[in-house]
Amino acid sequence: MEKKEIIVAQLPSGFRDYLPEDMIPRQKMFDTIRSVFERFGFLPIETPGVQKEDVLTGGDPAFDKNIYEVIQYDLFKTLKVAMSNTPEFAKRKLEETLGSSKDGMALRFDLTVSLARYTAQYGSQIKMPFKRYERGKVWRGENPQAGRYREFTQFDADTIGSGSMMADAEIVAVMYATMKELGVENFLIRVNNRKILNGLAEFAGFDPEKNAAVLRSIDKLDKIGWEGVESELCDKKGESGLEGSQAQKVKQFLDLRGEGKEDLLNKIGQLMQNSPSAQEGVKELFDVVRYVRSLGVPDDKWTIDISVARGLGYYTGPVFETMLLDLPSIGSVFSGGRYDDLVERFGGGSLPATGASVGVDRLFDALEKLGKLKREGSIAKVMVLNFDPKAEEYVQELATILRDGGIPTQVYFGKESKLRDQLGFASTAKIPAVVIAGGNEMEKGVVQVKDMEKGGQETIDKNEILAKVMSVLAR
Amino acid sequence: MEKKEIIVAQLPSGFRDYLPEDMIPRQKMFDTIRSVFERFGFLPIETPGVQKEDVLTGGDPAFDKNIYEVIQYDLFKTLKVAMSNTPEFAKRKLEETLGSSKDGMALRFDLTVSLARYTAQYGSQIKMPFKRYERGKVWRGENPQAGRYREFTQFDADTIGSGSMMADAEIVAVMYATMKELGVENFLIRVNNRKILNGLAEFAGFDPEKNAAVLRSIDKLDKIGWEGVESELCDKKGESGLEGSQAQKVKQFLDLRGEGKEDLLNKIGQLMQNSPSAQEGVKELFDVVRYVRSLGVPDDKWTIDISVARGLGYYTGPVFETMLLDLPSIGSVFSGGRYDDLVERFGGGSLPATGASVGVDRLFDALEKLGKLKREGSIAKVMVLNFDPKAEEYVQELATILRDGGIPTQVYFGKESKLRDQLGFASTAKIPAVVIAGGNEMEKGVVQVKDMEKGGQETIDKNEILAKVMSVLAR
Repeated sequence: MEKKEIIVAQLPSGFRDYLPEDMIPRQKMFDTIRSVFERFGFLPIETPGVQKEDVLTGGDPAFDKNIYEVIQYDLFKTLKVAMSNTPEFAKRKLEETLGSSKDGMALRFDLTVSLARYTAQYGSQIKMPFKRYERGKVWRGENPQAGRYREFTQFDADTIGSGSMMADAEIVAVMYATMKELGVENFLIRVNNRKILNGLAEFAGFDPEKNAAVLRSIDKLDKIGWEGVESELCDKKGESGLEGSQAQKVKQFLDLRGEGKEDLLNKIGQLMQNSPSAQEGVKELFDVVRYVRSLGVPDDKWTIDISVARGLGYYTGPVFETMLLDLPSIGSVFSGGRYDDLVERFGGGSLPATGASVGVDRLFDALEKLGKLKREGSIAKVMVLNFDPKAEEYVQELATILRDGGIPTQVYFGKESKLRDQLGFASTAKIPAVVIAGGNEMEKGVVQVKDMEKGGQETIDKNEILAKVMSVLAR
Repeated sequence: MEKKEIIVAQLPSGFRDYLPEDMIPRQKMFDTIRSVFERFGFLPIETPGVQKEDVLTGGDPAFDKNIYEVIQYDLFKTLKVAMSNTPEFAKRKLEETLGSSKDGMALRFDLTVSLARYTAQYGSQIKMPFKRYERGKVWRGENPQAGRYREFTQFDADTIGSGSMMADAEIVAVMYATMKELGVENFLIRVNNRKILNGLAEFAGFDPEKNAAVLRSIDKLDKIGWEGVESELCDKKGESGLEGSQAQKVKQFLDLRGEGKEDLLNKIGQLMQNSPSAQEGVKELFDVVRYVRSLGVPDDKWTIDISVARGLGYYTGPVFETMLLDLPSIGSVFSGGRYDDLVERFGGGSLPATGASVGVDRLFDALEKLGKLKREGSIAKVMVLNFDPKAEEYVQELATILRDGGIPTQVYFGKESKLRDQLGFASTAKIPAVVIAGGNEMEKGVVQVKDMEKGGQETIDKNEILAKVMSVLAR
């Protein structure tokens, strides 16, 4: 016979299952996000989880994201076997196996790079501006000890082919509508512009090559305060290695405050007069302010925050993030920005693009902590008990009537044969109504319908079952 | 600056994208399947695409499915570098890298094995019978030349913890309801029982170890006819190597026909009296017949077909498949069976289980060929044109009114500045209504609404926009 090794039933660390009690509200969350994205006219696409390695890395030898390579299991087994052979054999097998995998494949780490690839690939078929949404799994070799997942779902909305700030303003409006529809009230959308941040080098007089490192430090302002940021910036062994006077200029910038959004933008413009990039960024955000207001987003739900940098290297214009004010430590749950140069990787010139991504799993955890998840016990709204062998077929006919009436209905066919124990199952499963029918009921053409919450029980004609169950559920 | 290598925008072979024109009806297909599964009381779960390698292979060294191993990119890069070093170095790196990956990870090849793992893992928390559905990606190293995909979506419904044939009959009813709701009329669900097929060894007098090979040949009956099957069965160098007289017994079995399902089952029972397994299988199918009828599935939509074996090794009882009679060559689009021993792999004894899986991508291709896909051009039902800089904010206010009224609405913010060209965009995108508003309209507080199908155009008060657009769309 087959071998009977016992396998431990578990997942690799950093991976998770969603049980029904989580998955029911999670799916409602998906439905809500989808309906918001569709209301703004975004179109669905789907791209595969496995992509060409060079598409993901951009062919950059210094690419250092923790992604996952995908190789055929038989090649992998060959390598495992070669391991216990001579060094020469091991090396030859390695060459044969990996040498043939020049078309390396890997799991995507976000949906944006795949969208850029998609846009370049179908360019001529796509009518611009192209507004698309996609929900999909992404994978990163994160440290599971830090509570991070290695496989998680992103839900993105992006507009490709429009340089108008209307497209960016719409992303802010989508963020606002999504949070509102999910029942979150205490949130703040923070907006900045990479062009302003890129102007810091000119303004503070440091080498533009240091810009990325300076932004990484600024991004930590929330967590480590100005003193922490300053010591990073001025660390002579660090990446930035700024002079004290340069760091002071950075502080002068970060200290800017305004009486409202326009006032702040005016002050940035005045302070950074020597930076054409910052001037352009300020101009863009003036447009964003006008457009976001005309889209009906209340002024107190979003702000211009000049310390927001966002981690990803490909942003070129406005950047966005959504903070849950009751849970500041979890970071942004819905973030994005403009990335006008990403499609360029695939040739054919640059293409303006902007968008944002919901971190679905993080948001789900947050909604749970905030008590915003409505947990329902069961998909089935009725359970038809099944305790009398004589009535087996009658019971299924009843279930069919209910299902044809659109009511999710479960017939009990587990181990318990007693009515009482089956009622217990329905109660534990939080199914709101129960139909009881044995041989006696069958002969008379009647059924009993029990309201599991109010507790009432009524015997009715078989033909009234749908109406009766509906009235119980309508409560 | 950064390096500017141009990356070819493409997918690995065997992988595919879904463009919006496909994805809109595909998503409707998902919604339909989900609503059928929920109507039968199945609960949603989600499990990750990446699983432990031994969970997938069952620890079987002879496991030969073409799955994909997943390894961290940095380890993979280490191996690539080691390749060009000395043999000793290469071997050492190989040992270091793969030796540390005893917790190997791989991409799941179906959802059933992951469900068995899930059931064993959360056993005590799960109230049996457990009815679950899951939609998810699976991966197989198939030959893309044969038109097969290496990444595809499955949509499964399974019941764990019930040995009752009611659970199996329900799977047939789910298959029927799903096809009906998808608008497919000309289909046939074929049902058999592995217990009957397993009785063939006793009946025909061959070694039960040959059973799997015999079933593989029988499974080809549709394609290669009896003569092809017979020559496979009797090939002395083949896996079965049956005697001619044994093959004749197999033919005697396959030739059985009945006047209706009960008659066929009676004939099987009479023919295979010496096989307890076949007797048990016949008894089970008698129950299935009764239950499927009571679930309202018309008799002409399903049949008992004793040649149906289904490929997967883990089936132990009834097996099911759904054939589209207008497209017989594509094979089954919705298949499954009972697999009472699969959970045993994870210890804790066996657990009865039955279910079926929609091959979503194959079904989608089939629906397209059958003309059953309703293609809609766009998610957006209205496009608000945007051709007058003076009216930019007015235009977005109008869009917001429509969106708040629940109508998917797109504001045009592409390259075209002329009204005429923007109208062309809306027409190409098949958006049924267009709102036109420039500075003049803004000053008067009016808008023009254009019916893109009927062609009419009307100027109305801004406050009437929602009602007007709804009436255009209601056509």
